[in-house]
Amino acid sequence: MLLLLSVLVLLTQPPTSWGANVTTLPQKPLIENCTLVTCSPLEIGLPDLDGKEGPLGEKEDPDIAALWRQVKALQIAFLQYKKVELFPHGRVVGQKVFKAAGFQKPFQEAQQVCAQAGGQLPSPRSEAENHALQQLVQVEDKGNAFLSMTFSKVEGRFTYPGGESLVYTNWAPWEPNNDGGNEHCVEIFTNGKWNDRPCGDKRLVICEFCALGLGGAAKVQEAGPDPCAANMTRKS
Amino acid sequence: MLLLLSVLVLLTQPPTSWGANVTTLPQKPLIENCTLVTCSPLEIGLPDLDGKEGPLGEKEDPDIAALWRQVKALQIAFLQYKKVELFPHGRVVGQKVFKAAGFQKPFQEAQQVCAQAGGQLPSPRSEAENHALQQLVQVEDKGNAFLSMTFSKVEGRFTYPGGESLVYTNWAPWEPNNDGGNEHCVEIFTNGKWNDRPCGDKRLVICEFCALGLGGAAKVQEAGPDPCAANMTRKS
Amino acid sequence: MLLLLSVLVLLTQPPTSWGANVTTLPQKPLIENCTLVTCSPLEIGLPDLDGKEGPLGEKEDPDIAALWRQVKALQIAFLQYKKVELFPHGRVVGQKVFKAAGFQKPFQEAQQVCAQAGGQLPSPRSEAENHALQQLVQVEDKGNAFLSMTFSKVEGRFTYPGGESLVYTNWAPWEPNNDGGNEHCVEIFTNGKWNDRPCGDKRLVICEFCALGLGGAAKVQEAGPDPCAANMTRKS
Repeated sequence: MLLLLSVLVLLTQPPTSWGANVTTLPQKPLIENCTLVTCSPLEIGLPDLDGKEGPLGEKEDPDIAALWRQVKALQIAFLQYKKVELFPHGRVVGQKVFKAAGFQKPFQEAQQVCAQAGGQLPSPRSEAENHALQQLVQVEDKGNAFLSMTFSKVEGRFTYPGGESLVYTNWAPWEPNNDGGNEHCVEIFTNGKWNDRPCGDKRLVICEFCALGLGGAAKVQEAGPDPCAANMTRKS
Repeated sequence: MLLLLSVLVLLTQPPTSWGANVTTLPQKPLIENCTLVTCSPLEIGLPDLDGKEGPLGEKEDPDIAALWRQVKALQIAFLQYKKVELFPHGRVVGQKVFKAAGFQKPFQEAQQVCAQAGGQLPSPRSEAENHALQQLVQVEDKGNAFLSMTFSKVEGRFTYPGGESLVYTNWAPWEPNNDGGNEHCVEIFTNGKWNDRPCGDKRLVICEFCALGLGGAAKVQEAGPDPCAANMTRKS
Repeated sequence: MLLLLSVLVLLTQPPTSWGANVTTLPQKPLIENCTLVTCSPLEIGLPDLDGKEGPLGEKEDPDIAALWRQVKALQIAFLQYKKVELFPHGRVVGQKVFKAAGFQKPFQEAQQVCAQAGGQLPSPRSEAENHALQQLVQVEDKGNAFLSMTFSKVEGRFTYPGGESLVYTNWAPWEPNNDGGNEHCVEIFTNGKWNDRPCGDKRLVICEFCALGLGGAAKVQEAGPDPCAANMTRKS
C-alpha cells in the first residue's frame, strides 16, 4: 500500500509541461481492452452489479457496483461523442481514425501538420481503409488528398514512411506513371483510385490517428510497421 | 472466476471487423448512468475515497480508491472535451446532441449522411430542442436546415420517420401550405420557425445523435419513438 | 450502504433539464487526477491486475481486475479521440484547450459565443500558451484573433476579465498605442505578437476551455484568477 501511495504522490506533482514528472508503471499490450470499449453500445458487456448477486454468485461490494455504473455510463457517453466527433470530417475503420483538415498543403507540410497533431498521413492498408478515405475525399469536396507513401529511389518502388513495402494498392489504370519524371507522392481520387503526383503540389490534408499511437507529437511518426497494425501483432 | 476469465478470453480475439466475436452480457437500462456522467462538473458526485474512511465508515481497498480517482479524472477530462467538441458546430439538449455538417444536401442524401454517421436528421420534440437547432442554424450561416419529418400521404399529415405523430410543432404563420403541391419536407428558419419545402431542395445538413442511439450506422434510424426519448421511457 | 443507495436513487430521477435533482457529494481538488489521465499513452501507469498477483502481492478481486481493464481501455480510447478532436482547429497546453470557431465577430459577441459554449476568450498566460494560439491563428488563415483582455479605464491598463493584472504580455513593438483613442481590445497576429484594436472590429473567434471550468454555460466566465490556473493553486 505504501508503494501505491508513493506512486500516486509522484504522479501528482504539478508538471511544467505535460509528461514531466510522471512515473511509468509496466503495462501489458492493451489491444484486448480496445476491443472491449469500442464496440457499439449493444456490445458493451459488463456484468450487472447492483449490490446484489454478481456474475459469480457472490454479494458484490456496493462501491465496486457503483464504480461499474460510473464506468458503464462513461463508456456510453464516450460512444455518443465519438459519433458526434467523427461527423462529418472523420471516419473510423478498426483501430484507425481518418480526419480531414479542410485545407490543402504540399506533401512535406501536410506530413508536418499530421505529425504535430500526433498522427500521420493516411496509409490505407486494405479495401476497407481505402474506402473510408474515399468517402472523406468525396464529402470534403476539396479535391484529391495526399497519402503517406512516397517513391523510394533506393528501393525503386513506393513505400510507407520508414521504408516498408506496400501491402495494399489501388492504383488507377496505367498508374503510377511518373508523368514528368518527378511524381514521387501519391494522391487518392474521389473514386478511391490512386495516382502519383509531384510532392510539391497542394492536396487536401487528411491525417490518420491510431488508438495506440506512439507519443511525441512533434515528430514524424517512427519508421516501422503501421502503428495501428503493430498493436495487433504485439498481442501475440 | 473461470466464467469471467473465459468471457474475457472470448472478448479478446482480434475481430476482423468491429463487433465480431463479442459476447454480450445482459445489461439493465442505463439511463440513470447517463444522468450520473453528463452533469456539469459541479454535479459529479462521487464519494471521496482516498484510502482512508469511505462513505460507509469502512477502510476502503486502496485499489478501489485508486480506481475511483482514475474514473473521476476520466469524467472530468471527458466533460472538458465534450465542451470542446460541441464548439462551435454542436448543441446538447438533454440526451440529444445536434451537430451541423457545414454543407447542404437534398433531403434523401441528408438522411443518408446522418444515418451513415450513426445519427438521424433532427426531430425537435420541445421548445428547448427547437431553440438549440435554431442557434445552430444562425451560427452556421448557411441557410435553413432540414428536419426529419415528412408529409405522409397515408396519414394526411407530417410525421416523424417511422410514422409517429408530431408531439411538438413550430410552424411559421400560414405553414405548412404545400405551396406548389410538392412540399413534403420541412425546413427550420434562423428564427426557429418551420416551413414545408420540396424534398429535392438543398438545405443545411444537421444531424442528431442520441446517448443510447441504436447501432447499425449504415441504415436509416429504426421506426418507432424518438430513440433519445425511448431510453427515458424504458427506465420505468 | 443505505446512504449510497439513497444517493443513487436521488441521482436517477429523470431531470427535466440537466442538473436538476442531482445531489452533489463533496469532492477534493482533482488536479492530480487530470495528470494521471492526460499523459500520453506511454505514461498511463496503472497496475496490471489480471486476476493474479497485484502490485501489493495479494490476489486481486477479478471484478476489480476487469474494471481496471475497462478503465484502461477507456483512457486509451479517450486519448485517441482527444487527438482527433483537436485536429486541426484545437491546441492543448497544460490544462487549457484553445479551439478556433472559424468565423469572426466583434469583441462582445465573441465573448458571448465563448461563454455560451462553456469557455471564455483566450487569456494566454505564458509563452507556451501564446505560441499555441499563434499556431491556431496561422492554421485558420482567417486573420487575427481577439484575446480576452481589455483596457480598464479605472486601472489605466489592460486586465483579464474580472480585473486581474496581466502576468504575461507579448505586445508588438510600440504597442499598445491606443491608435485613434478607442483601442480597448487586443488581437494576436499570426506572428504571435499583440496589438490593441477597437472592440467593434470583427476578429477570428478562438475560445479557451479549462479542464475544471466552472459550470453555467450561458454567462461570461466569473471574475477572478484564470480558472485553468486556479485549479493548480487549489491543490495546495
